[in-house]
Amino acid sequence: MNGLIDSIGLAAGLLTTTAFIPQVWKIYRTKSGKDISARMFSLFSAGIVLWLIYGVLLQSVPLILSNAVTLVLSLTIIGLKLRYREPR
Amino acid sequence: MNGLIDSIGLAAGLLTTTAFIPQVWKIYRTKSGKDISARMFSLFSAGIVLWLIYGVLLQSVPLILSNAVTLVLSLTIIGLKLRYREPR
Repeated sequence: MNGLIDSIGLAAGLLTTTAFIPQVWKIYRTKSGKDISARMFSLFSAGIVLWLIYGVLLQSVPLILSNAVTLVLSLTIIGLKLRYREPR
Repeated sequence: MNGLIDSIGLAAGLLTTTAFIPQVWKIYRTKSGKDISARMFSLFSAGIVLWLIYGVLLQSVPLILSNAVTLVLSLTIIGLKLRYREPR
């Protein structure tokens, strides 16, 4: 049963994590991220750090793995947005 | 101890969930979501459904609450992006 639960968690993590890849690619390709909310991704990244801690405390491998990767991708999106922002 | 773990999970969920609100607001305010990756939010929403199931199986209140709200917000972002897309 634990195997089934972990499989669902891993599938969940695979989807929510890989979801960020098209967004990273889209900003990189268009060199534009002005419709991206930096506030969203900053709050989100802070939350992901807490989910990572929650996963460690629950000893949940799916939570630990997916939040570690998601954190890197979310920070990458913020970095790309800042890199391509328009001069005011 | 469980109270502490749940508190961390709830704080995590509060952050990752409220993170979506500025993004919803930004698309609504600018009437533009062209830099938003619909593919990202579709994959993400599918993953959130699985996290919700994972949360139910683990009986994790933070996972259930935050993923239920996040799912609504993520689907709202897709809906707004489609609503404001430019004619080709």
